[in-house]
Amino acid sequence: MEGCKSKMSKCIKDWSREDLLALKNKLELEYNEFVGKNLALNMARGKPSGGLLDHNTPVLDKFSPFAADGTDARNYGVLEGLPEMRSFFGEVLGMDPERIIIGGNSSLNLMYDSFVRLMLFGTGGHPAWGSFPKRKFLCPSPGYDRHFAITQEFGFEMITVPMTVDGPDMDVVEKLVAEDENIKGIWCVPLYSNPQGICYSDETVERLGKMKTAAPDFKIFWDNAYGVHHLYGETKLADIFEACEKGGNPDRAYYFFSTSKITFPGAGVAMIAASLTERKEILKRMTIQTIGSDKLNQLRTLRVLKDAATLKQHMAELADILRPKFDIVLETLDTELAEAGFARWNSPKGGYFVSLDTMDGCAKAALALASAAGVTMTGAGATFPYKKDPADSNIRIAPTYPTDDELRVAMKLFCVCVKLATVRKLCGEI
Amino acid sequence: MEGCKSKMSKCIKDWSREDLLALKNKLELEYNEFVGKNLALNMARGKPSGGLLDHNTPVLDKFSPFAADGTDARNYGVLEGLPEMRSFFGEVLGMDPERIIIGGNSSLNLMYDSFVRLMLFGTGGHPAWGSFPKRKFLCPSPGYDRHFAITQEFGFEMITVPMTVDGPDMDVVEKLVAEDENIKGIWCVPLYSNPQGICYSDETVERLGKMKTAAPDFKIFWDNAYGVHHLYGETKLADIFEACEKGGNPDRAYYFFSTSKITFPGAGVAMIAASLTERKEILKRMTIQTIGSDKLNQLRTLRVLKDAATLKQHMAELADILRPKFDIVLETLDTELAEAGFARWNSPKGGYFVSLDTMDGCAKAALALASAAGVTMTGAGATFPYKKDPADSNIRIAPTYPTDDELRVAMKLFCVCVKLATVRKLCGEI
Repeated sequence: MEGCKSKMSKCIKDWSREDLLALKNKLELEYNEFVGKNLALNMARGKPSGGLLDHNTPVLDKFSPFAADGTDARNYGVLEGLPEMRSFFGEVLGMDPERIIIGGNSSLNLMYDSFVRLMLFGTGGHPAWGSFPKRKFLCPSPGYDRHFAITQEFGFEMITVPMTVDGPDMDVVEKLVAEDENIKGIWCVPLYSNPQGICYSDETVERLGKMKTAAPDFKIFWDNAYGVHHLYGETKLADIFEACEKGGNPDRAYYFFSTSKITFPGAGVAMIAASLTERKEILKRMTIQTIGSDKLNQLRTLRVLKDAATLKQHMAELADILRPKFDIVLETLDTELAEAGFARWNSPKGGYFVSLDTMDGCAKAALALASAAGVTMTGAGATFPYKKDPADSNIRIAPTYPTDDELRVAMKLFCVCVKLATVRKLCGEI
Repeated sequence: MEGCKSKMSKCIKDWSREDLLALKNKLELEYNEFVGKNLALNMARGKPSGGLLDHNTPVLDKFSPFAADGTDARNYGVLEGLPEMRSFFGEVLGMDPERIIIGGNSSLNLMYDSFVRLMLFGTGGHPAWGSFPKRKFLCPSPGYDRHFAITQEFGFEMITVPMTVDGPDMDVVEKLVAEDENIKGIWCVPLYSNPQGICYSDETVERLGKMKTAAPDFKIFWDNAYGVHHLYGETKLADIFEACEKGGNPDRAYYFFSTSKITFPGAGVAMIAASLTERKEILKRMTIQTIGSDKLNQLRTLRVLKDAATLKQHMAELADILRPKFDIVLETLDTELAEAGFARWNSPKGGYFVSLDTMDGCAKAALALASAAGVTMTGAGATFPYKKDPADSNIRIAPTYPTDDELRVAMKLFCVCVKLATVRKLCGEI
């Protein structure tokens, strides 16, 4: 995180009112110029750009519909997914393919369905989560708004856990889960977390696996969405299954992954992995839900991604498209906001987002300005449970969708908006 | 339904013990000949054959990923499905596309998810179905085993309703639903029902729409799986939405359809349709569950099926592949079983199955014989709730998967098994 960078210039907080008003007038002029451009840019979601998608067009080619074992992928069956798809994910993520079940195009849907199973049926012989009227869930924040939406939908009280540079604050987590059997689980995006790009340290993973929980059926929802999305060289992630086994809690983790941000968001292949015991329970329920997911799309995806080595090369090529976008964001922030300490932000080494903190009470105002000038960003507060950022300061920047040129314009406007909102705040106008 | 056909020959029930024993010996020889062939044929599920699938290979061709409105189908979004996919289904099924939401590759999954929503959240401001400990569901039988499996999974008491040539026995249905608010819905396969191939009459549809139900949130699960699977000319189906509206129950029906048995079972496109009010509620829940289903597969499917006229031609070509299979089944049954009244069966005008009733208490034994000789059929009882056929007589014949030659052998063996089981039963051996 960067703060007031320069020792030479004065932090904006310490400026005189006169200087602030002068700056405000200047910024209002700049802002109005952007408004005059009639922009319509969307940076709200982590959507890949057309360029990223074009890179994957071979996935659309015609191909033979037969799997390696002769299975006709056009027909019904193979509930757990094709063996070669499970082997591929196993190799890429360093896990036993026997842990893996292949889903449809959405790992989010697999997470939702896991909540459904736990709510209605429970697991491991424990009561259904739905039978706990005071059920709670740990939500390291800032975090992913769609995780929080699922938690809220199923009636959980969401408990915000602060993030550190090593992942969720484990002192807080351990204390909470040890005391309250109503706390049923925790959301984790362990590599290049959404939105901060934080990577969980080995110690964090180890502690998550071994911590004592009052709930015997405590679950870690391990959403490794950006597990292969390295922008500046590889970051290693400790093995959550191994940590849980060593900690004496072999059934604790559900591991989610997909190719949504590797091939196509709309037509990727998703998976859930678990202990062999948990996997068996999941399959027992899934066999009532569906006859099987789209095996043709599994083959189609595999014909392009092939194996871990090919995937690595594929991701390096995607990173070459993504990295300049991150560079534009970080350079603009550095140029526009660093010196006077308008905001703090992270410099992620991978993933899909840059997380920025304005001065307290300025995020909503800054985003409203951006929106009024035609640039849609993720809504203020979205990275916190109940969409309520207590400090009104966190903003998620999603640079993946716009073209580089659009992004330059959008980021310049965004910085004007952050500065203008800050100055207005300091002038007592908001 | 055919019974003892010939007035000339004696019905098997009236044969002398001596004649029965002689026939038994002859059949045992015939059966053992089949056993010696080491067959391994699967007629258990309504899976299409390779020939049916080959007919659809253009669905696998490369194509442009852009929808008619310019949407990039590779990316996130469009929760309700592409407009052209909804228009296509609307045209084919004669309904307003605004009622339709596109799902993934499985309409069964959409039915399961609908149960989940109703169990956990309820609809229309009514209490969640999960809050009714004595919840019940009407199961017209024989019916589809996977429907019954869902009903059982969610803890419903399944109430068997007899079928007539016009659909479920509506006198029974109307009486049950009027009295008991715990009865929350009914399963319907209205055209070429699974397994009997029965088509609901206009009067049945009208009565389903207008009947008085004690449960204000009673739901018709309208699984029109074989809605375009005409084998011998088109059968018309009355409009369930219109019937519900006219009956004063506009929100009563959930309509399910898919291309699973039009293109590929493993990679089709499924849909759910409902009243605009219900659809809004469904979307409100779905937006938490997923960002959207596979739009590329929607485009891929549409590039082949195009419109209602093209689909009609497509289905006529599929019928040319399917019809000979049904002819083999019906001719073999007629030759082998009709004269002496070993069984009764229907002659469906479409769909995927032939339903056969043995003499009471013979179905399990006949299928065990077939299985021991290498022919897997749908398990005895599978067409009834709890897999319990009270008469032990119904057998579902699924002729779609084997090649014509395999089917001829399998059907001859099957008839031997039915006859042998019947004779053994009449001899008091089972």
